[in-house]
Amino acid sequence: MFQECLENVRTKAPLIHCITNYVTVNDVANVILACGGAPIMADDQEEAAEITSICGGLTINIGTLNTRTIRSMLSAGQKARELGHPILLDPVGAGASHLRTQTAVSLMEELHFQVIRGNVSELRALMLGSTTTRGVEAAAADAVTEQNLNDMVALAKAWSKASGSIIAMTGAIDLVADAQRCFVIRNGRPEMGRITGTGCQLSGLMTAYITANPDRLLEASAAAVCLMGLAGETGWRHLAPYEGNATYRNRIIDAVCRIDGAELESGARYEIR
Amino acid sequence: MFQECLENVRTKAPLIHCITNYVTVNDVANVILACGGAPIMADDQEEAAEITSICGGLTINIGTLNTRTIRSMLSAGQKARELGHPILLDPVGAGASHLRTQTAVSLMEELHFQVIRGNVSELRALMLGSTTTRGVEAAAADAVTEQNLNDMVALAKAWSKASGSIIAMTGAIDLVADAQRCFVIRNGRPEMGRITGTGCQLSGLMTAYITANPDRLLEASAAAVCLMGLAGETGWRHLAPYEGNATYRNRIIDAVCRIDGAELESGARYEIR
Amino acid sequence: MFQECLENVRTKAPLIHCITNYVTVNDVANVILACGGAPIMADDQEEAAEITSICGGLTINIGTLNTRTIRSMLSAGQKARELGHPILLDPVGAGASHLRTQTAVSLMEELHFQVIRGNVSELRALMLGSTTTRGVEAAAADAVTEQNLNDMVALAKAWSKASGSIIAMTGAIDLVADAQRCFVIRNGRPEMGRITGTGCQLSGLMTAYITANPDRLLEASAAAVCLMGLAGETGWRHLAPYEGNATYRNRIIDAVCRIDGAELESGARYEIR
Repeated sequence: MFQECLENVRTKAPLIHCITNYVTVNDVANVILACGGAPIMADDQEEAAEITSICGGLTINIGTLNTRTIRSMLSAGQKARELGHPILLDPVGAGASHLRTQTAVSLMEELHFQVIRGNVSELRALMLGSTTTRGVEAAAADAVTEQNLNDMVALAKAWSKASGSIIAMTGAIDLVADAQRCFVIRNGRPEMGRITGTGCQLSGLMTAYITANPDRLLEASAAAVCLMGLAGETGWRHLAPYEGNATYRNRIIDAVCRIDGAELESGARYEIR
Repeated sequence: MFQECLENVRTKAPLIHCITNYVTVNDVANVILACGGAPIMADDQEEAAEITSICGGLTINIGTLNTRTIRSMLSAGQKARELGHPILLDPVGAGASHLRTQTAVSLMEELHFQVIRGNVSELRALMLGSTTTRGVEAAAADAVTEQNLNDMVALAKAWSKASGSIIAMTGAIDLVADAQRCFVIRNGRPEMGRITGTGCQLSGLMTAYITANPDRLLEASAAAVCLMGLAGETGWRHLAPYEGNATYRNRIIDAVCRIDGAELESGARYEIR
Repeated sequence: MFQECLENVRTKAPLIHCITNYVTVNDVANVILACGGAPIMADDQEEAAEITSICGGLTINIGTLNTRTIRSMLSAGQKARELGHPILLDPVGAGASHLRTQTAVSLMEELHFQVIRGNVSELRALMLGSTTTRGVEAAAADAVTEQNLNDMVALAKAWSKASGSIIAMTGAIDLVADAQRCFVIRNGRPEMGRITGTGCQLSGLMTAYITANPDRLLEASAAAVCLMGLAGETGWRHLAPYEGNATYRNRIIDAVCRIDGAELESGARYEIR
């Protein structure tokens, strides 16, 4: 199943409109190219809707948002919704400032996202108005663990039901849930957290996956999460002892470029609850 | 001849003012440093003209343009024109939105570019008002091939004559033409298309080359195109089987850093038509 | 002493608010993660002060400044001052345009920086209103050399006294001075100058160091400069003959990630004058 998702991305080469932060934008573009898609970045209100209309999917990432780009997010999102294109929201830093929380909340109200991807704190801020997000990382106390797994799975399903979006809650254990089913994913490595933008990259990757697999959004989302985690494992194996987070960043994107459908199928570690 | 062009860049270390997109800006800066130039990025209207005046050349790239930076492009361009500095236009995504096409067209009308570099679709949009550009990549049907080569060479010369600019039409086969002569260049590798920003990087590189070689703009432009393609070939040879587009991106810039004049001279594969 | 500074960063994991240029922002984020800190980038006036308030330190870098972000620098800076958070100023390109010089000068007047880090030309422009800065690189004539070392040490101390900030004047020889003492540092390699953003990265790194070591700002600043230089030496040793500035960039960040306190202590090459 994941194999087919991956191959659909490579065959269809979906064009993805990215309104994303300037910190990790280059990595997002390269990871979308690595997986078989094609990115186009455009964040001015005068062209946002028009660019969306020539693309297949839209990713909205609120890291480094500003008044100008917030308007473009809304305008691109409305066009995508009109055209039936899948949209993913990455609420980077929701909870860290009122601007981010309010923007994410208001985007949720104005648009409909097929997928919302964030860490627990960001999703919680979005869903509950909590403000415990520490920077862009999940606070340790808010992580999904083997101990609280049942509760977190239930929470992810509840948030999915409440929002009408697939919820991808990523961290040491990743959860990808709709209202009924939750993929519990155990790919990846903790060292991925010492690279800026692995979350942003995953959001770009997931958007390519859902765009190329419109009939199986949940499976495609889970496949993208497994692929990113597997790429983190594969990339790590090729690191020399003197290499660190900068080279690791490249190795992960390299692995996304190289992993084929059979490898994804056999390397994905997940259960469905 | 190419050897001399390369050595002039290394000797003169031209300072290049870049108004360029935020997706690939870091790679553009590093490739300009790699070839022997020095980059300075400045896109605010209050300083654009002043920064241009301390530089030797100007590169204008309309990827991720917005109302604020369009004004800076015009103001920097007018100053560069006044001072006789070479200017290169990279019309990223022309044809993909009215804003991009109109901006590129109006920049062409207001300024005079020594070189315009894009893929066939972008140049076509710019020249003919066509709207077939798919994202920032040339549509397959619009590529230069061995079959349509004579026609495309004639087209490049015609566009050069019409615009008064050297036309660099890059893709699987690259054409670099003025009204009389066209370099047909067969360096490079198809995998370069899976890296974001090789086109933007080439534009930065070409600007350094034309700035350091004001008396032979066509040859300098062709030398830069050959160098980028050759770097793509050299970089590819050093890739391990587990490496992909992210590491390849670095290897190409590394190769630009390492290739000397003699290697460029012997590795350049071109004919003049 | 440097060992303790490094370990404090790793233990406390300071969260650093970065208002920095879009050219090198990704490398700045990765180097802060590499050294043990956590970065958050936010440059909109509506959230700048609020983001500062959840962080431990603030770095302000004026490369690619614009009217919108200048307001955010002031507002974040005032909040940091109010909260007693350390602030570092990187006056990228001061002297290259009136906007940059004036902005840097006015930030100095409105705020109080614990550290100001730049090359000689930038610092001179800031301090003396000179305009000899060539792009973002120190003009050769303005470099610190063994010949002019005594004079430059005296100058750094005088500038520190005048500004009330620690002055980090970086180049082939780095000086880190307060009004009484100056660390003269001889780590690093000349090839670091062919990578975009090693200065910006160092500014990010220093901000993490001063934030985690509030009781020894001068030592922490010097430790960060030694670490960056040592990383440049370590990274260079692992470069293959075909590798150049792009891979070198990654190797340096990798080395920041790997170097431990004992290695920093033994590899740091400095004297105090």
